[in-house]
Amino acid sequence: MSSKRIAGPEIERLIQLLAKVPGLGPRSARRAALHLIKKKEQLLGPLAHAMADAVDKVRVCSVCGNVDTSDPCMICSDPRRDDSTIVVVEDVSDLWALERAGVQNARFHVLGGTLSPLDGVGPDDLTIAKLVSRVAAGGVAEVIIAVNATIEGQTTAHYITDQLAGMGVKVTRLAHGVPVGGELDYLDEGTLAAALKSRTAF
Amino acid sequence: MSSKRIAGPEIERLIQLLAKVPGLGPRSARRAALHLIKKKEQLLGPLAHAMADAVDKVRVCSVCGNVDTSDPCMICSDPRRDDSTIVVVEDVSDLWALERAGVQNARFHVLGGTLSPLDGVGPDDLTIAKLVSRVAAGGVAEVIIAVNATIEGQTTAHYITDQLAGMGVKVTRLAHGVPVGGELDYLDEGTLAAALKSRTAF
Repeated sequence: MSSKRIAGPEIERLIQLLAKVPGLGPRSARRAALHLIKKKEQLLGPLAHAMADAVDKVRVCSVCGNVDTSDPCMICSDPRRDDSTIVVVEDVSDLWALERAGVQNARFHVLGGTLSPLDGVGPDDLTIAKLVSRVAAGGVAEVIIAVNATIEGQTTAHYITDQLAGMGVKVTRLAHGVPVGGELDYLDEGTLAAALKSRTAF
Repeated sequence: MSSKRIAGPEIERLIQLLAKVPGLGPRSARRAALHLIKKKEQLLGPLAHAMADAVDKVRVCSVCGNVDTSDPCMICSDPRRDDSTIVVVEDVSDLWALERAGVQNARFHVLGGTLSPLDGVGPDDLTIAKLVSRVAAGGVAEVIIAVNATIEGQTTAHYITDQLAGMGVKVTRLAHGVPVGGELDYLDEGTLAAALKSRTAF
């Protein structure tokens, strides 16, 4: 019954495609489609235009791997950024998260994933060689490896550290510890042990 | 900090517009935008196209008030439908829900809302006059009022029943009772009282 056609093929296709957007499922895609259709002038039209615009203009930054409408991206072409620090992240979403936090005025480097031999992801599938040549080009004092605190992330971090060894660059990683606002009772032992080990003076 | 620009204006605009889609918020809009950008050829492009198509082609059916890419809509122009029954609903989403259930092979009539004096919605803001003229045109034996079981819905149902009085048409409404699969323990007293009152023989 769920395959019963309820409207013309154009509306069906819109619902089908909306259902593939992360955060929407088949049911919420119908709701979204109806809302968009009702707000045709205010929302559906502008959104269609913005999407077509993104298809035309968005590209991967040839320097750092970020996605943007210019190449080099907004961050790579920003003259006020500190060239001596490169923050290495797994994915563009991590770059966006760090930028929202707005704590580091550095350059970035997007790996495009993590090393994962079981999934067939080796060093050549990531942008590690490009990172090494960015460092080799000079002017970089510190590489901050901001990958996820997963096994794959840590493996990748170790591999990168090895690749950068002897290049005269400081390699650092994010601190492990208690999340701000977090309750000790809910944290795993690994995090608690790391937080205790890295305790700081009051 | 949340207003910090993380990418070019085209990407920012895409995120802003996606955040207005029901089911997505500011955070999930970013996630959705990034996913769409990564699947530019498979998803973003086709979705932009489907939306532009919908903007061009979707219109409100001049007979029943449904939205579709043809006017009269697919349901109004379907020759296999039973002309003698009209199911009256508040909104297109209710029409879609009933069609998915696929229980009634009838025609529909979308009111476009419910009577709500406090919100300034009177009979002229709904398609009640159009419903009365559809019935007056003849050939209709039954009008099933399938509005929501809310105060406004029931007020609207009574008003429509009054308007159709003396036109020789049977006016019915949906049964109240226990939802299929529902547990008595979780139901309100009104529903339980209605289900008991309308009990049927085994």
